[in-house]
Amino acid sequence: MSKQNLFENLPETLPKEVFTDLLSSEHIRIERILSKGHCSPENDWYDQNESEWVLLVQGDAVLEYEDGRCISMTMGDYQNIPAHVKHRVKWTHPDKVSIWLAIFY
Amino acid sequence: MSKQNLFENLPETLPKEVFTDLLSSEHIRIERILSKGHCSPENDWYDQNESEWVLLVQGDAVLEYEDGRCISMTMGDYQNIPAHVKHRVKWTHPDKVSIWLAIFY
Repeated sequence: MSKQNLFENLPETLPKEVFTDLLSSEHIRIERILSKGHCSPENDWYDQNESEWVLLVQGDAVLEYEDGRCISMTMGDYQNIPAHVKHRVKWTHPDKVSIWLAIFY
Repeated sequence: MSKQNLFENLPETLPKEVFTDLLSSEHIRIERILSKGHCSPENDWYDQNESEWVLLVQGDAVLEYEDGRCISMTMGDYQNIPAHVKHRVKWTHPDKVSIWLAIFY
């Protein structure tokens, strides 16, 4: 139960996105994701067995859904993505770190 | 899957803490809690059947555990509180809104 902070351990450079499990339990997993200019490859969709509730804690990003919707997200925005709703990260801000909090359930 | 924001719908005044369910599912519940100077009554402990992962998105607060530990929390701090670990909110900042994100699982 020691205290930790979402803004800790931010790497100096982010050649790749960084995924860190903050909690892993029977029914849920909480993950921090760091992005900086990263996006999903073109036509590469996440198709997940679990639902995902995702909050953008810091930064700017665009999520794209297979049905064509593009959702701009900024600090504090959150979305619930049901299992098997295909989506991808279309864009993240190239000049600042975007911090995602993703809850898979 | 419409976008919502954690910083939306902040009331002008907070005579009481405000609890809002952001997601409720079979195994988890995600709640936003707004506090401003509120704390748990003296000797009134939360004793929950579910575990709680809690993030302080904004503000300042102190959590107290029954074993005597007091944990100061500020923006980005998070803790995991296992089921039945008794705890209370000892203090929240009186002059700014503290926004908690609590995941019960």
